[in-house]
Amino acid sequence: MSNQYEIKKSNRVRQLKKKARYDKKNVHRILDAGLVAHVGFNQDDGPVVVPMLYGRAKNEIYLHGARKARIIRLLEDTNRISLNVTLLDGIVLARSTFNSSMHYRSVTIFGKPELIEDHQEKLMAMRVISENTAPGRWDEVRDSHINEVKMTGVIKVMIEEASAKISTGDPDDQPEDYEIPIWAGILPITMKTGELQNDKKLKAGIKPSKTLNSLQNKIF
Amino acid sequence: MSNQYEIKKSNRVRQLKKKARYDKKNVHRILDAGLVAHVGFNQDDGPVVVPMLYGRAKNEIYLHGARKARIIRLLEDTNRISLNVTLLDGIVLARSTFNSSMHYRSVTIFGKPELIEDHQEKLMAMRVISENTAPGRWDEVRDSHINEVKMTGVIKVMIEEASAKISTGDPDDQPEDYEIPIWAGILPITMKTGELQNDKKLKAGIKPSKTLNSLQNKIF
Repeated sequence: MSNQYEIKKSNRVRQLKKKARYDKKNVHRILDAGLVAHVGFNQDDGPVVVPMLYGRAKNEIYLHGARKARIIRLLEDTNRISLNVTLLDGIVLARSTFNSSMHYRSVTIFGKPELIEDHQEKLMAMRVISENTAPGRWDEVRDSHINEVKMTGVIKVMIEEASAKISTGDPDDQPEDYEIPIWAGILPITMKTGELQNDKKLKAGIKPSKTLNSLQNKIF
Repeated sequence: MSNQYEIKKSNRVRQLKKKARYDKKNVHRILDAGLVAHVGFNQDDGPVVVPMLYGRAKNEIYLHGARKARIIRLLEDTNRISLNVTLLDGIVLARSTFNSSMHYRSVTIFGKPELIEDHQEKLMAMRVISENTAPGRWDEVRDSHINEVKMTGVIKVMIEEASAKISTGDPDDQPEDYEIPIWAGILPITMKTGELQNDKKLKAGIKPSKTLNSLQNKIF
């Protein structure tokens, strides 16, 4: 199996090509670091973008929603979606607006969505999404009722094309602009988890597990 | 002028209707809190989703890119885009996977993109995007060269339809699940800026302005 996603018309990066990556290692690492994917598809020939939780296993992405939800019915009926996961890492404050930009890790994939019908495969995919959102939690909560699995629509997207874009580094100003007496540099941005907050209805004496505690103060 | 965005087929929220908002105050507040929009449109009849910086003024959203970039040429030629801005606020850890979810603020808009040709209008829109990204910075950097403005493609999107969805609160478990001796609650998520990092090429003695200092350690 190739370590690279094939470069086609759809996923070839045209702008800032130096930042482009097509290897599975980088693409998967960014997908596995993100929490929410923005999924784009067509409804009545018009584009729609919807934020969705997701998870990845090998070359597949899983999405879910209520089985009867519009989004699941639309994804089931569509031949191709685009999906983007972007993590912001900072604002690049250059000496001009023109050269100012962002630090980010971003992945765009294209593929055909497919509704998972098989109960066991559905459970596996639901677990992958759960593990991407809150690792370890799946094994701690009560088992899913059969009816809950039935009420959940799970979509599998085989990654057909993918590209990543990673932007880091100092501002890249025009040579003459370095003489301007103005501060320039990076304003970092971090997304992180905080401290666990008890459900107000939590029974006295129930503490978070070790696994849950380890999810606190984590940087994405 | 109405305080509400009209509810149409495209923007009517079907799932979790209680979380839906159509008033301009909520829609604009979320748009003004975000940094990156996910823009969905069609290329060769297939959907594409691209993360872009943006800014809002009144009922208009501005986007930009290199004038010759594919994204600007495609947006110029398309009749309708969907744009989503989502801010994640936490993971809702319920007692079952089925009832687990997220805290978020999310806005979806639809509209027709239009390339701004007029130099002054372009500058105004570029300023709005800059102010949404790094408030106050526009007035501190050197003025944009006429050629830089020419090389920038700026897109205006009049918001035709919009909806917001705001999710807060404790887990909503099945009544019988509250008896399960498992911890439940919220794992908050925060996106924030950090401390300014000097450009390695910064000349000695140049300090960040008051405005820049005030952008540090800010929560989105």
